[in-house]
Amino acid sequence: MQAVPEPHEGSDTRTVSAAERAALIAALRSVLPRDALLTEPEELRSYECDGLSMFRKAPLLVVLPHDVAQAQAVLRICRERRVPVVARGAGTGLSGGALPLDNGALLGLARFDRILDVDARNRTARVQPGVRNLAISEAVASLGLYYAPDPSSQIACSIGGNVAENSGGVHCLKYGLTVHNVLAVKLLTMDGELLTLGSQGLDAPGYDLLALVTGSEGLLGVIVEITVKLMPKPERAQVLMASFDDVETAGNAVAAIIGAGIIPAGLEMMDNPSIRAAEDFVHAGYPVEAAAILLCELDGSNEDVSEQVMQVRELLRASGATEVRTAQDEAERLRFWAGRKAAFPAVGRIAADYYCMDGTIPRRHLGRVLTRIAELGAEHGLRVANVFHAGDGNLHPLILYDASHAGELERAEALGARILELCVEVGGTITGEHGVGVEKIDQMCVQFAAPELAQFHALKHAFDPDGLLNPGKAVPTLHRCAEFGAMHVHHGELRFPDLPRF
Amino acid sequence: MQAVPEPHEGSDTRTVSAAERAALIAALRSVLPRDALLTEPEELRSYECDGLSMFRKAPLLVVLPHDVAQAQAVLRICRERRVPVVARGAGTGLSGGALPLDNGALLGLARFDRILDVDARNRTARVQPGVRNLAISEAVASLGLYYAPDPSSQIACSIGGNVAENSGGVHCLKYGLTVHNVLAVKLLTMDGELLTLGSQGLDAPGYDLLALVTGSEGLLGVIVEITVKLMPKPERAQVLMASFDDVETAGNAVAAIIGAGIIPAGLEMMDNPSIRAAEDFVHAGYPVEAAAILLCELDGSNEDVSEQVMQVRELLRASGATEVRTAQDEAERLRFWAGRKAAFPAVGRIAADYYCMDGTIPRRHLGRVLTRIAELGAEHGLRVANVFHAGDGNLHPLILYDASHAGELERAEALGARILELCVEVGGTITGEHGVGVEKIDQMCVQFAAPELAQFHALKHAFDPDGLLNPGKAVPTLHRCAEFGAMHVHHGELRFPDLPRF
Repeated sequence: MQAVPEPHEGSDTRTVSAAERAALIAALRSVLPRDALLTEPEELRSYECDGLSMFRKAPLLVVLPHDVAQAQAVLRICRERRVPVVARGAGTGLSGGALPLDNGALLGLARFDRILDVDARNRTARVQPGVRNLAISEAVASLGLYYAPDPSSQIACSIGGNVAENSGGVHCLKYGLTVHNVLAVKLLTMDGELLTLGSQGLDAPGYDLLALVTGSEGLLGVIVEITVKLMPKPERAQVLMASFDDVETAGNAVAAIIGAGIIPAGLEMMDNPSIRAAEDFVHAGYPVEAAAILLCELDGSNEDVSEQVMQVRELLRASGATEVRTAQDEAERLRFWAGRKAAFPAVGRIAADYYCMDGTIPRRHLGRVLTRIAELGAEHGLRVANVFHAGDGNLHPLILYDASHAGELERAEALGARILELCVEVGGTITGEHGVGVEKIDQMCVQFAAPELAQFHALKHAFDPDGLLNPGKAVPTLHRCAEFGAMHVHHGELRFPDLPRF
Repeated sequence: MQAVPEPHEGSDTRTVSAAERAALIAALRSVLPRDALLTEPEELRSYECDGLSMFRKAPLLVVLPHDVAQAQAVLRICRERRVPVVARGAGTGLSGGALPLDNGALLGLARFDRILDVDARNRTARVQPGVRNLAISEAVASLGLYYAPDPSSQIACSIGGNVAENSGGVHCLKYGLTVHNVLAVKLLTMDGELLTLGSQGLDAPGYDLLALVTGSEGLLGVIVEITVKLMPKPERAQVLMASFDDVETAGNAVAAIIGAGIIPAGLEMMDNPSIRAAEDFVHAGYPVEAAAILLCELDGSNEDVSEQVMQVRELLRASGATEVRTAQDEAERLRFWAGRKAAFPAVGRIAADYYCMDGTIPRRHLGRVLTRIAELGAEHGLRVANVFHAGDGNLHPLILYDASHAGELERAEALGARILELCVEVGGTITGEHGVGVEKIDQMCVQFAAPELAQFHALKHAFDPDGLLNPGKAVPTLHRCAEFGAMHVHHGELRFPDLPRF
């Protein structure tokens, strides 16, 4: 690891004078059509935040280029003038990765919305970053194909954002995260250089910059084209719903299924507060008395699914499920999933506000961690509903609070932080699929020791030496971590910095 | 991408004086036990080359540390004295990645040979880099588990080398490359810093340094510990052997199987010269008159395998197979594979020397490319045998030559280069699983344009600013590519530098 001077947080904090802004606008006008540059306060307001709406800031200005050449020109102008750039897809991110900077340009990719090419024989599609996740599957449905990663926001979220956050979804247990479903990307570096990363081959020589860029949260470059893998639609999909008297037993059932060598297409858990909220909202037919339910989807050939359905039913019963139901038809299967997919908005109906967390843990700790989360909730005087990708050990605790009550937002944030730190303590991570953004930047100090963080900065420096791309996000400075660590050591809450790694 | 001064090839070319060497030896003696330092010419000779024996060079000296502390001390001493370091696993690599430098230390990891921990519930194993690939599967067989990637050299090759080269194997079509089967690594940087990369969680925050380091061919750091995924042994495996009258038809049959949405555990092709050589050597029961055979292995549940065997047999017949045989018992299944696994040594028996290539192409071009390879062979007056991972589009042409005949080695190298360039021309890559090393460094100039290569150098600089780790391998300097490109443009053989990317 090289001794790069640690990036001062300069680029995201320096102020821009009115004259500088005027000159920047003039420069951008010279390379962009009228409709590609927004500068009026009311135009900027709709870009104040992404899906993490507790953080808001109006950008210095917004650029909406139509093509790569325009995006290149924008980056070169900003680089020249040392103006930070924040890229934005559909703005559905949940960790504030697209939160604007008041001294920086917001680069919206909404107009990169074309599917450029579909190669049915090789089962690949070449698309622009602004294409919606679900639009890809819709476009290739007639070919019997689909794009596997399915974040809950798939109706709205863009594939470019999916790559930037390495998004997951219900089906990632079997089909992998975004990084496993992308073959290549075209990336603009901060100086406007266009890089082609990855290939359609089995493996690409050279360093794996494709994997490096996937999940890099807009800190290394701006993605302008993506080649995704397409999957053949399985012959059949079937879902089982199992009820449990307590969460810990449900957690152990998950371990039993995976331990048997079965890889469900999806294996989701909901606890009682989530079950009640969802049932009340969409009437999915959930057992409202259950402490927890598991939804287990199996897909593949008819024979294979039939066999696995029997096998999983047995495993669930043996693991202590009080009831196991198999969807009787496609309508019921979709109803079972409708409850899960509506869980977040459903919880939104029972609380003024909620804060959606995202951490991962080794599956074997599921029961223990859920119990501890409940305790932490009580300690902070807040309710927590759990809806999550149990098969992946990817938790999504929803912290219920009311921002209009003084101090509740702060308590929710504190509880969220403790939950993420708990994930690290048991050998997990502070994010499964939502990214770090601004939300979890302090928890990165818990996740990583100084040498890894220093290497991250050296690597960022290799792509963006001036630290102009999405500054202040995803990777904390060592200085920030030193303060955070010191604070924690002082409180003695955390076994920091010598947490068990794994 | 940052404007890093392009690394002069200094560190791999500067000479080391006798006095410098003596001082280095003294410094290493002070931190290493007697048996961890080799300096005598006869001791050094056995480290002259790896699996690419056409390149040989004795190292300045060899260090064989017993533990991480010793390896750290060695790296710090070498860094201080600007001595290049080449890491070596089992030395089975086929691209010269472990070729020593006469002015550099060879760091052998043979003594890092312990399996540290097996976690059956999470299906992971923590191992040292010197552990043999097959030894992992042997160690967990009693638990019904195995490690999926299976390079042909798996009896001998080490897992550390597998990570450094991102090794593949017959089963990677279904189970992925090394990068898909590794959860975490511990890496020593050139300045002796120990980094922990990856996690046991679904996804790790921060940049994906784990994927970046996998396949980086020893240029970024020295791997000292690896956590691998273990897979449950499938209930059943069955193999079909199909014969074809011509190679192109066999290539199309591959596309038909994959196109049907079937993912075989292995899908291998051998052409007539390989079939004859293998049959002659191990009597696998191959049809020696066939122009090509396909070996298709299916694994999974009994029901699933039975169904897929029927489906694949139909597809093979429909695609023009002249004969389709299903192994009648486990003994015959192993015999079918024995021929494939012995194919390289078998070809070694029919030619004085052979040169094993490794390129990938989009599957749809299989037939066309195999025909073109035959033409190129004729043009160069050399025979070529083909044995390869057809399902992955990963070719392994074996160029037959006799080094004792003046000029044949050079002709073999020239033919090999043309074959790799052909792979790139059809949208493939110059390596599927063997890496670039010294062998394919010029073809990297064909694979990548200057901006990607410059970014590679910037990234290398972020890990190893002095260019001391495995210098001169894997990533060519822009200067070298300029000369190579100019040479090619001059010959007019290649549509360089504006080759179709994909």
